[in-house]
Formats: sequence, structure tokens, C-alpha cells
Amino acid sequence: MFKFTPLENAVCAVEGFYANGIAAGLKKNNAKDLAFVYSDTVCDVAAVYTSNKMLAAPLQHAKAKGTIQSNFILINSKNANAMTGTRGVKDIDAIFSSLLMKFPLVSPLMSSTGVIGVHLPTEKIINAALTFDLSTRDGVAASQAIMTTDAFSKTIAYEVTTTSGESFRIGAMAKGAGMINPAMATMLCFITTDINLPQVMVQAVLDKVNKVSFNAASVDGDTSTNDTVFIMNNKKSNCEDTEAFEEALTRVMTFLAKEMVRDGEGATKLITYNVTGAANDKEAEIAAKSLSNSLLIKTAFNGEDPNWGRIAMSVGACGIECHESTLTIAYEDIVLVNKGENLFNDAMEKECARVLCKDAFEVNVDIGVGEGKFTAYGCDLGHEYVTINADYRT
Amino acid sequence: MFKFTPLENAVCAVEGFYANGIAAGLKKNNAKDLAFVYSDTVCDVAAVYTSNKMLAAPLQHAKAKGTIQSNFILINSKNANAMTGTRGVKDIDAIFSSLLMKFPLVSPLMSSTGVIGVHLPTEKIINAALTFDLSTRDGVAASQAIMTTDAFSKTIAYEVTTTSGESFRIGAMAKGAGMINPAMATMLCFITTDINLPQVMVQAVLDKVNKVSFNAASVDGDTSTNDTVFIMNNKKSNCEDTEAFEEALTRVMTFLAKEMVRDGEGATKLITYNVTGAANDKEAEIAAKSLSNSLLIKTAFNGEDPNWGRIAMSVGACGIECHESTLTIAYEDIVLVNKGENLFNDAMEKECARVLCKDAFEVNVDIGVGEGKFTAYGCDLGHEYVTINADYRT
Repeated sequence: MFKFTPLENAVCAVEGFYANGIAAGLKKNNAKDLAFVYSDTVCDVAAVYTSNKMLAAPLQHAKAKGTIQSNFILINSKNANAMTGTRGVKDIDAIFSSLLMKFPLVSPLMSSTGVIGVHLPTEKIINAALTFDLSTRDGVAASQAIMTTDAFSKTIAYEVTTTSGESFRIGAMAKGAGMINPAMATMLCFITTDINLPQVMVQAVLDKVNKVSFNAASVDGDTSTNDTVFIMNNKKSNCEDTEAFEEALTRVMTFLAKEMVRDGEGATKLITYNVTGAANDKEAEIAAKSLSNSLLIKTAFNGEDPNWGRIAMSVGACGIECHESTLTIAYEDIVLVNKGENLFNDAMEKECARVLCKDAFEVNVDIGVGEGKFTAYGCDLGHEYVTINADYRT
Repeated sequence: MFKFTPLENAVCAVEGFYANGIAAGLKKNNAKDLAFVYSDTVCDVAAVYTSNKMLAAPLQHAKAKGTIQSNFILINSKNANAMTGTRGVKDIDAIFSSLLMKFPLVSPLMSSTGVIGVHLPTEKIINAALTFDLSTRDGVAASQAIMTTDAFSKTIAYEVTTTSGESFRIGAMAKGAGMINPAMATMLCFITTDINLPQVMVQAVLDKVNKVSFNAASVDGDTSTNDTVFIMNNKKSNCEDTEAFEEALTRVMTFLAKEMVRDGEGATKLITYNVTGAANDKEAEIAAKSLSNSLLIKTAFNGEDPNWGRIAMSVGACGIECHESTLTIAYEDIVLVNKGENLFNDAMEKECARVLCKDAFEVNVDIGVGEGKFTAYGCDLGHEYVTINADYRT
């Protein structure tokens, strides 16, 4: 229906946006750790934040502004500026006071990711940020600077053309190895666009799409203090197609959510859990998330073990309406249990092995009581997860 | 207040109870896999079952009886008789039909633990059970026959004497390496007693104590299809002291719950999470269970990493009333965060290491908003968990 043309340069794929990533000395070995996204006009900003009540300082700082217009986001990795009390927010103000001497910043925003409970090294950040060249357009360098334990940077950009020939652009970068990193170091996502829609409309679409993308993805079931998605919209295009924007945002955010899961710590497989036939969509969501968060399922899939009993266990345990006699479980198109009847046999074991050894596969669960459906994204859990998370700080 | 004298022989420590465990050929290498608990008089039975809706056949069979009087429980390991449809219940009836030809069974009960979705080998079970000698009193053999991945068997027994000189006995065995085993293979607990209290009173005490013992313990946050606690009470003592019984049951069930966590798959540490100062007891329970189930906390403790940020994250994420500025976190008596203020420093790192390297330690979290409190029991998560659960069926 809409034409999607992939573009290079992530958040800088949209005209009027600039970005870069540099080394401020927060990470070791001169690695990039400080990024900016700058717009040559003041943008509408739409945002979603973590539901964690121990809100990190940059989120307190941004939320205090209410509905936001801004032309600048500063992002650091290696330090989350969380559990840092009132000083955490004052540190952000101090950084921006210094930057405002040099740069034409309007209501600047900050995002941080890294270790909790340590105050920001404001001197280092200010000194490095003062070297920014706001005319740089290096979306890839920015995406690298926001990484923590990410094995790869995560970017995507499209030009979207509607049937009436109007077009707009959307570009994005995200970080997160799992929905949450060691030391709760967050998922962050920054999206630029020039869709010609008012802030309230963009915010509404963001809220809706967030539920089926980032909020449907899970690596370990924990929720960080810093999770943030920002959309900066300069409204420079003439396209006012809300439907096209929703489809574009869904593509962008679902892609990035799956990339995060694929990069999940210790993960070797991306697993899509399609739950259908629940009493309603909410119950389908509960079941899908229960499946994607179950340690026993994650470890079984790590071992490529078609242990469907764990699927039945997780559905039965999650509190939704369900019955043994209506439950159907399939790995892709291989039906293991049909309305409670166990079809699993030795021949099927080999078929399952062919599915479970893939990098990505789908688990289809029909609860058999209604029309509710939800899709969640999860990964397996292997030794590497334990190694990364047991040894993170040391 | 009450005198507790430890006794040998687990469920057989109470006069009138008999038990044994034998090899029926369900496990390999002639290992014990079939047990009975028999009473020479018909007992009141109190019971709690899993909240999982995919209720295993033996639980359906027992629940169909309503309030139970029985003199016999048959227990097999290696097969859970779960997700086995109507045949699962019929298989139990068939087994007892055969046993009733030889033994004076009154309303016999069955418990099963092991792999899901496989029908019981009824022939093997009947043939082996027909060799039972109901006059055998080997509580230890019975406790070994109900093990699956348990590294050790779990038993306890006391004679309890009240201040007025009356006494009663209580004996117990449990299985479970974690609240749930690979393939959801269950925690099971069997308790015998001769307390002279009516069934409704024993049931009420069981319900109450279960909440702060087995339901406060967690290895991996999953809930099996087979979890069961049975208390068989022959009422032969003259002791009618409800308070003494509650204290005895609390001791017995808390001990066994902690033993299960200590035996958690891949666990090297037993961690007690004392949450105080929550808005109410329910919110304290939510926080304590959130802490004990957090993968990030479990892996940090596995690495003996005093990463208190993960504690703050978990409290903030669990949905209860809490504030950064009122949160206090201590490992035993080492206060790391005092009302939101970070006291952690390099010297404290060494103190923490002395706590975290222990086999068992306490984490004390004061939410700082009210009087609610709850204690949960958890373990760390190490490589061995992944190894056991990724390779269980194969």
C-alpha cells in the first residue's frame, strides 16, 4: 500500500537532522561514548519513558518539561545517571548551561545509559560536547556512541511514499542488548521524521506502536530505570498521512525491537510467540509475555529441546482463561498438541529439530477460547547471559 | 515457647505411619522411583495444589474428592501425568483398582512428578506397587524415591511439646530442586502428624503457612502443573494446641522451602530477601518476590557482585509505591543506600564481598513508606542452571 525505500545514515536520513558520536573518555580505549542529534529547526518531540518508578535523572529532567519542543538531544553511554538524587538533575542543567554558551540549543534533552548510582562526570562530558560540530551528519557514529554491551549498532531509515505520491522520511537508531542491559542499562531509541502531523497525533501513534514493538520484546523480563523513546519531528514534508506514518513507525520500531532481542545477552535465537484464541487481546498479551519470559522455555530452546510441556506450563501458570482440552501448540507449522491431544512422536522430534536449530523461528499457541491475539518477541538463554551478567561490574 | 525435639525417619517419625520407596523401572539403573505413605487408621487430609490451570491428572483426581479422608498416598517420579487428558485420570483409577485387590486402601491418593505429556506406565507401577510391604517404616527410602533432579533428599521431623506438657509429632518429606524442576517437574511435600485438631483447622493453618514458606520461595519464577502439599493427620495425640501446630508447620515447611531453594538448579547461594516499610504486606510481598525472581539480581549474586543498582531497579519496576528518596538497601548489616543516598565506596566493596561469598546471606530492603513486610527466599543463577535445563530431555 505504501512504498518503503530504505535509506542510509539512520537519524540523519531525514533532511535537517545532524548527528555524530565521539569519545569523551567515559568508555575505555577511546571508544565513542557521547552522541548528539541536532535539528536545524525546533522540532516537536514525542516520547515514551520507562514504567520503572526509580526514574533516572534525565527522564525526570525531560518529563518536567511536559510537552516538548526541542532541537537537541545529548546522549552518553557508560553512566545511567540513575539513583543519583537531586544532583543527577542539577548535573544535566550544568552541562546544558555550558553548552548554551556556544550552541543555539532550544530546550535541550539528555539521555543516559550505563551503570546506576554513579554521578555523571560532567567535566568530561562538557569538554567533549563543546567540540561537537553541529553540521556533521554521521548517523552511524551516533548509533555506535550509544552502545553499551550491544554487539552491533541498530539503525534503520526509510523514505515512505503514499499512493497519492506524497512522501516523508523516518530515521532511527536504538541501543539495547535485550530490553535491559546489565546494570539495568536501558534501551534507548531516537527517531527523526519530517511527517507533517501535529505532536499529539505523533505521540498517539507512538504510544500505540510502542505496545506492540518495544513493549512486546523481552530478553530477561526486567525493566530499566532509563528506557526512553524520543521522536523528533521537524514537519518539513508535505505528507499528512497518519496511516502511512503508523505503518512506518511500526516497521521501524518492530525492526529495532527484534534487533535488540537478537542481540540479547547470551541469545542465539530470536523467537516470535504468536498467541491466538485467547479470551481477549489483553489475555493473549499476558500469555505471550509469559512464554517469552519463562526461564524454562528460554533454556529449553537454547538446548534446541522441543519440550512443549513447558509451553503448556507457562500458559497454565499465567492466570488467563485456558483449558488443557482447547490448547494447541505448534512450532511454525508443526502441530505438537492439537486441542489438548499430544501428537508428539519420534518422527516429529526430527522435524522440530530442523525448526529449533534456526536463528529465528515462530511458536504458535492457540488458547482456543476466544478471538484475542498478541505477538511477543523473545530469545533463548544461554551460558553467555550468565557470564555477562555475573561479571559486568568487575 | 514450645519445645522442638528433632526426630529421625521423616514421615514415619509419627506413630501409625508407614512408608517406603522402591524401584519400579521408571528411572534408569534400578533407582528408587515409587513411594507410598500409609496410615494404619484413616486420616484427615489437608491439601494445597498448584495455581497452574493445566492441572495434572493426579491433582484433578484428588480435587474431585473434595475434603479428603484417606490412608494411602502413592507417589511416582519420572512422569508427571500432566497434559494427559481424561486418560491421565483413568490411569490412576486403574492403578488403584488393581491395588485394592491386595491392600486395605481407603480413598487412596496419588502424586506424580517428572516429564509432562507422557502417559503413565501403569503396568510397571502396578506390578511394583503390588510388592509393597505396608508394614515397612523407611521414611528415608520414600524421600529418595520422589526425587527427580534433586541433589539431595529433603526430610525433617519433630516431637513438639507444649508448656502444658502435651505433645504431638510432625514428619515431612519434600522434593523439588527449585520451586519447579526441569519439565515443570514440581515440588511435592508430604507431611504426617498426630495433632488432635479437626481437618478444617489443619487446612486453615496449612493455607496460612504455605503463603510464607513454599509460596515465598523461588528458583526460577515458573509454576508447575503438579505442585502439591498433603498433610495426613491421624489425630492420635492428645495435643489440641493450634498455636503449637502452626509454629511446627511453619518450621517444617520453611525449612523444606529453603532446602529446595538451596538445591535450586545451578544455585550456589540461598538468599533471604527481607522487605520492610512497604505500604502494606501485599506490596512487600510483590517487592520481595520481584527481587528473588530478577534474573539480573540472581546473576549478579552468582558473580558475587554487590551491584545494588539492580535491587533499586527491581523495586522500582515491580509496581509498588516507592521513592528513590526513601529507599534503603543493605546486605546483612552493610547499608549501601540510606534513604536514597548512595553510601557505597571502595572500602565497602570488600565488606560486601565477605557477605556475598557466603552460602547464605540476607538482603534487607526498606521501602520507607509504611509498615508492610514480607520475606522471600531465592537463589543465584549460574551456568549449571542453563546446562541442566537446556539438556533435560535429551
